[in-house]
Amino acid sequence: MYRSRIKNETLWSKVVSPQQAAMLIRDGMVVGMSGFTRAGEAKAVPMALADRALAGEPLGITLITGASLGNDLDKTLAEAKVTRRRMPFQADPTLRKEINAGNVMFVDQHLSETVELLRSGQLGPLDVAIVEAVAITENGGIIPTTSVGNSATFAMLAEKVIVEINITMGEEMEGLHDIYIPTRRPYREPIPVVDTRSRVGLPYIPVDPSRIAAIVITDKKDSTAKIEPPDHETKAIANHLIGFLDNEVKRGRLGLNLAPLQAGIGSIANAVLHGFGDSHFHDLTMYSEVLQDSTFDLFDCGKLTYASGSSITLSADKHESVLRNINKYKSRLILRPQEISNHPEVIRRLGLIAINTALEADIYGNVNSTHVMGSQMMNGIGGSGDFARNAYLSVFVTKSVAKGGRISSIVPMVTHVDHCEHDVDIIVTEQGLADLRNLAPRERAKVVIANCVHPSYRDEIADYVAEATRTVGGQTPHMLDKAFFLHQRLRDQGSMQPVAATQAAE
Amino acid sequence: MYRSRIKNETLWSKVVSPQQAAMLIRDGMVVGMSGFTRAGEAKAVPMALADRALAGEPLGITLITGASLGNDLDKTLAEAKVTRRRMPFQADPTLRKEINAGNVMFVDQHLSETVELLRSGQLGPLDVAIVEAVAITENGGIIPTTSVGNSATFAMLAEKVIVEINITMGEEMEGLHDIYIPTRRPYREPIPVVDTRSRVGLPYIPVDPSRIAAIVITDKKDSTAKIEPPDHETKAIANHLIGFLDNEVKRGRLGLNLAPLQAGIGSIANAVLHGFGDSHFHDLTMYSEVLQDSTFDLFDCGKLTYASGSSITLSADKHESVLRNINKYKSRLILRPQEISNHPEVIRRLGLIAINTALEADIYGNVNSTHVMGSQMMNGIGGSGDFARNAYLSVFVTKSVAKGGRISSIVPMVTHVDHCEHDVDIIVTEQGLADLRNLAPRERAKVVIANCVHPSYRDEIADYVAEATRTVGGQTPHMLDKAFFLHQRLRDQGSMQPVAATQAAE
Ligand SMILES: CC(C)(COP(=O)(O)OP(=O)(O)OC[C@H]1O[C@@H](n2cnc3c(N)ncnc32)[C@H](O)[C@@H]1OP(=O)(O)O)[C@@H](O)C(=O)NCCC(=O)NCCS
Ligand SMILES: CC(C)(COP(=O)(O)OP(=O)(O)OC[C@H]1O[C@@H](n2cnc3c(N)ncnc32)[C@H](O)[C@@H]1OP(=O)(O)O)[C@@H](O)C(=O)NCCC(=O)NCCS
Repeated sequence: MYRSRIKNETLWSKVVSPQQAAMLIRDGMVVGMSGFTRAGEAKAVPMALADRALAGEPLGITLITGASLGNDLDKTLAEAKVTRRRMPFQADPTLRKEINAGNVMFVDQHLSETVELLRSGQLGPLDVAIVEAVAITENGGIIPTTSVGNSATFAMLAEKVIVEINITMGEEMEGLHDIYIPTRRPYREPIPVVDTRSRVGLPYIPVDPSRIAAIVITDKKDSTAKIEPPDHETKAIANHLIGFLDNEVKRGRLGLNLAPLQAGIGSIANAVLHGFGDSHFHDLTMYSEVLQDSTFDLFDCGKLTYASGSSITLSADKHESVLRNINKYKSRLILRPQEISNHPEVIRRLGLIAINTALEADIYGNVNSTHVMGSQMMNGIGGSGDFARNAYLSVFVTKSVAKGGRISSIVPMVTHVDHCEHDVDIIVTEQGLADLRNLAPRERAKVVIANCVHPSYRDEIADYVAEATRTVGGQTPHMLDKAFFLHQRLRDQGSMQPVAATQAAE
Repeated sequence: MYRSRIKNETLWSKVVSPQQAAMLIRDGMVVGMSGFTRAGEAKAVPMALADRALAGEPLGITLITGASLGNDLDKTLAEAKVTRRRMPFQADPTLRKEINAGNVMFVDQHLSETVELLRSGQLGPLDVAIVEAVAITENGGIIPTTSVGNSATFAMLAEKVIVEINITMGEEMEGLHDIYIPTRRPYREPIPVVDTRSRVGLPYIPVDPSRIAAIVITDKKDSTAKIEPPDHETKAIANHLIGFLDNEVKRGRLGLNLAPLQAGIGSIANAVLHGFGDSHFHDLTMYSEVLQDSTFDLFDCGKLTYASGSSITLSADKHESVLRNINKYKSRLILRPQEISNHPEVIRRLGLIAINTALEADIYGNVNSTHVMGSQMMNGIGGSGDFARNAYLSVFVTKSVAKGGRISSIVPMVTHVDHCEHDVDIIVTEQGLADLRNLAPRERAKVVIANCVHPSYRDEIADYVAEATRTVGGQTPHMLDKAFFLHQRLRDQGSMQPVAATQAAE
């Protein structure tokens, strides 16, 4: 049955069990696997690897992917100690623990950059690529499934390629992907994407069939995403942002179709996109990384005309209805390599409105996306840097407090900077929106404190700035011995609230 | 005499005195002036403005330039209180003082981005542009002098354009410039620059002659640059870097012509470029921002085949010999708008080796280019972010200590982040070079401490990391109450050295 999925007959003999394919991977290798935000990861071979390691074989690898993996693979591989080095992103609690304990070396990278390092020989060589596919074409072309991620470059550069044909993925996915890989420097040409809709590459990953070392058949499905429905706060964030964009339209800076939208993962981004469904904006487009439920909701309600991404990650609800009906969406949908979905060149050209979630932001507009208390890795910078730096409008959203009010997400100084003040135009919390464009840091602090900080932290943070301005001054007034006073209080007392206030705020 | 410089005769009647031209500027206006790193700034009209303000007229403006201004203009305008808001860069001690005192609002921007904000109406409208020129063509085209900077976009967008014809600049400068402005979104096309040499625009700034409101004739020269000759430390830095690049060539990652070079301003960058003169690399090219003495030295010794920049800033020595002989260099030289010299699209495409100077760097590879002790603005981020983020290889150089050893330029945590760990590949001090590519933060700290930190600080910083790793752990171990312990010591005791050691180190 699966033979119909392998159009090149010379490859039929390459079909083996996941265990056999996994034997191509040995201790110390560098392995590139498909998979982006729990979509389209190779599923069977990595499990076979974990089994070998759990059975006692010394088997540690450098694991490079698109982004995070589904089916608890990052957990399984971390527990089996297969993952020794990991890049460029992850989002798994078990792996996170191993990273923060110093047991796994995690190289946190801009998602557009990993393949540049591979291609120029600064990283690698890549020993094996494992890529999930819907089918293989007659000339050996690999048709990816629900994500492209870094798969194309992995398959083109790896010494050996393993393909996992996933028979639960419909063959009608063919034509969804647009595989364009920048030419090598110094002969690199402009990337011809000039519009969300631009198709500039092939519908498959071109690979010489002789480089396909093994083919595995699987029927494991993508994990589904848990997406929190909008709540009071996320709705407020969406409303503030939509009100702001409304005003930009009124001032003639944007049309009612806005600009191509990029939205990060998570419940806030989801709520914001839902908000667009009820807005009077129309003919929207997306040039994003992960396409989630909200993308398809916006298609269904007629607000969205086109969406480009690198993966499709859906909730259990949506999973079947979208993937079964992919033909319905195919003419309005494109999946690209993450190098292209996230490429500075294209993002800057198209002029995106980029909406990403901050872990914490500071009063001067610096954003921490990754490190809790400056040290503990959450997930990684992902694509947020690619988008925030190059967008027309770079928006960061966050609830003003976390952990029931014990943490203020707006602080005097972030404990880790992923996005510097220069890359952050707008900060939105449920309290309000701060438009930081063309403001000097002292002015930014005023707007952020007035509009974004939770009332229970407002006075103390305002006092900090006032004192820093008086005693230290400067472009960006800071007292280095007090800049982290809220974080120190959290560490020592379990809350950023002053002791007396802790109970009242809960 | 100057009439020969104004080829469009209808413009002859527009020639006025600087004072008359300056009357076009009124209190509260937004003014864009030519000038980039002390080259090619408008010289006469700004002085007339300062005179008016000094005579008591209320006259405060938002001043936007390419980068820093020569002829002490930023000093004069700051003292006269003409400069109320300033962007995107400056490097003047007097203005710096006003900024740090909170008297001038300074908006520190990536140099490639200012005109995007103007063009999209997010900044402005621009009331007046003042642009220094060699000549005006028959159809009103403005031929810039020693810099292009943001002049083209200023002249194209401003309500009124003032041209300062500088008769000390030779007319043979015509043909040096390449004025290309990206088309407007959503119709923007790829920027066709595919090589350092690519000429893709016009040799002048196209302006409808009717928009030229006044023309002023001046004979003030550009200020010359003071460049420290290489010293023991800057030579050591150059040697470490050249040794590293040598090794990259041996590994086959680079050819002997390396990759297009970008070098920041200052004595270290200068020493590094000098070092290339003595190396066995050849057929080098530059795709940089400011072209300094070293560019022309490299031309003269036959190492450099082509250089692209946005300005030419020279020492007194070189000034005459280069500008007088500009025809000798013209076929190997191009001056572009800073939007193009610094454009993420082009930088990423060409794959530059970017060499910029850090004020301080931390053990995890974050770099502070701007804020002394986290608060006091030095100059601004300039183009360093445009280059560091998008380069093939992003190098930061600094001496390991400043102020006679009282300051360690490598610290546990930088007090301000301009370039996050993701954007920094290589750190070099006179002590050695740290190759941070593909390293996790814990690994980075080891290499930076071993190779870059001055011996007098090495043990204390190593102890910090060891303690942070033991007590806090995480991806990037930090103790928030001690992260700035060296800075606090500097503030309290005048030196980062432990009290007992201070004398020994001096
Ligand atoms: C920043 C990021 C972690 C936020 O995640 P999210 O799921 O949208 O937001 P949440 O509010 O649910 O926060 C996640 C967790 O962090 C905690 N948190 C939020 N703010 C915090 C803060 N300032 N300090 C400590 N913890 C905080 C929350 O309490 C929550 O904890 P829980 O998992 O125990 O409930 C996530 O967006 C991310 O990884 N971003 C980086 C990559 C990126 O931006 N990619 C987008 C390009 S596609
Ligand atoms: C970072 C920068 C200020 C360094 O300047 P430089 O002239 O090359 O380097 P110097 O070593 O001479 O340092 C300049 C001053 O900073 C001081 N300094 C250096 N390191 C310091 C530190 N860690 N803390 C405090 N002061 C420091 C020096 O002592 C010197 O002071 P002085 O002027 O009183 O002598 C400069 O490169 C800059 O402005 N960079 C940002 C913009 C940029 O990178 N543009 C490049 C793209 S073209």
